[in-house]
Amino acid sequence: MKINVVKSVLEASDACAAENRRVMDAAGVVAINILSAPGSGKTSLLENTIPRLAAQDRCAVLVGDLQTTRDAERLGPLGAAVTQINTGGGCHLSPAQVAEGLKTLDLNGLAFLFIENVGNMVCPAVFDLGEHLRAILLSVPEGDDKVAKYPTLFQGADVILLTKVDLLGVLDYDAGRVRGDLARINTRAPLIELSNTTHRGLDEWLGWLGGQRLAKPGA
Amino acid sequence: MKINVVKSVLEASDACAAENRRVMDAAGVVAINILSAPGSGKTSLLENTIPRLAAQDRCAVLVGDLQTTRDAERLGPLGAAVTQINTGGGCHLSPAQVAEGLKTLDLNGLAFLFIENVGNMVCPAVFDLGEHLRAILLSVPEGDDKVAKYPTLFQGADVILLTKVDLLGVLDYDAGRVRGDLARINTRAPLIELSNTTHRGLDEWLGWLGGQRLAKPGA
Repeated sequence: MKINVVKSVLEASDACAAENRRVMDAAGVVAINILSAPGSGKTSLLENTIPRLAAQDRCAVLVGDLQTTRDAERLGPLGAAVTQINTGGGCHLSPAQVAEGLKTLDLNGLAFLFIENVGNMVCPAVFDLGEHLRAILLSVPEGDDKVAKYPTLFQGADVILLTKVDLLGVLDYDAGRVRGDLARINTRAPLIELSNTTHRGLDEWLGWLGGQRLAKPGA
Repeated sequence: MKINVVKSVLEASDACAAENRRVMDAAGVVAINILSAPGSGKTSLLENTIPRLAAQDRCAVLVGDLQTTRDAERLGPLGAAVTQINTGGGCHLSPAQVAEGLKTLDLNGLAFLFIENVGNMVCPAVFDLGEHLRAILLSVPEGDDKVAKYPTLFQGADVILLTKVDLLGVLDYDAGRVRGDLARINTRAPLIELSNTTHRGLDEWLGWLGGQRLAKPGA
């Protein structure tokens, strides 16, 4: 009985995600679900990304947090439309919350929708929100054992950003161990070494993003 | 209907936690549930703590992870009994898993049981495992906004360890902001600034632990 309840909840969740994807496909929007532990640099990445895309691409952000509007306050001044979704204790964004968020945005002419998930390496990994791609951040100070310890998260990645690489010289960290663990579970996603402080790797990330852009009608 | 299912699950969970606490009370064990984001230094803290307690106190560890036995492998050589609990994909330890773990340990004469939870700032916060105290770790590189963003976690803390303070000079970090946010939600738990690398704050943490020790019968 309990299993049936859980199954029907997940089926409803997946149906809602599929509808979100249909809505975004119809509008020509590429949606990127950004996942990581708390404090890996998701908001900082968007602070660096959105202004650099602005000349060519209109972007919007749905940002999930348990509480506060601090991330939306950081992202608001960048010029992109930003909607904060407070989960009120919920450990991940749900596709129903994303559906509500989509209603607050003008999708026409939008190139990229960034969905900044709740900082959590576990629960967000198992919920499809209707995104097209998943970007997973892993910061150097979290330690070089996290790919092996959270495989579900990294298996679903389309791109992996090793962030805070400016700390590689300060901390005892074996990037080769991370690459070795990734080679066993996900050989599809490129690994980009990035620093939101020094901007190392930012061009590589923007290049990857550019490759995901849909051709504009008539372009 | 769904609400009733959830409620009964949580009631069963709390009953199991109460039974764990009764078992540990009977044996004179002080159980400490250690919670934090991934990579905040839970295992490193135990690597530094257990050898320093060994002369006076017998300790044991239950360590929760989604996958791998890497933490148990790190803690095993320290001399304490260590049991790894793999949650599969579960995002937190459950009291039933702790009950199973307790069966693997000799509780007689045990002073402290450390329960290292799954690295996650959200879900573990709402599950009582039967512990007596909660130690919450927050590492400097996670950023100074985390107390406000994860209040449920910090409200339940009996002690808070601000870890990786050796990076305070390297990163842009406002420890005053953390203290200010804590002052609004938890004035009970001391905040200890600690580095597992330089060992700053370790004596203060050991002093706090010593104050939680139960008087031994006949001592």
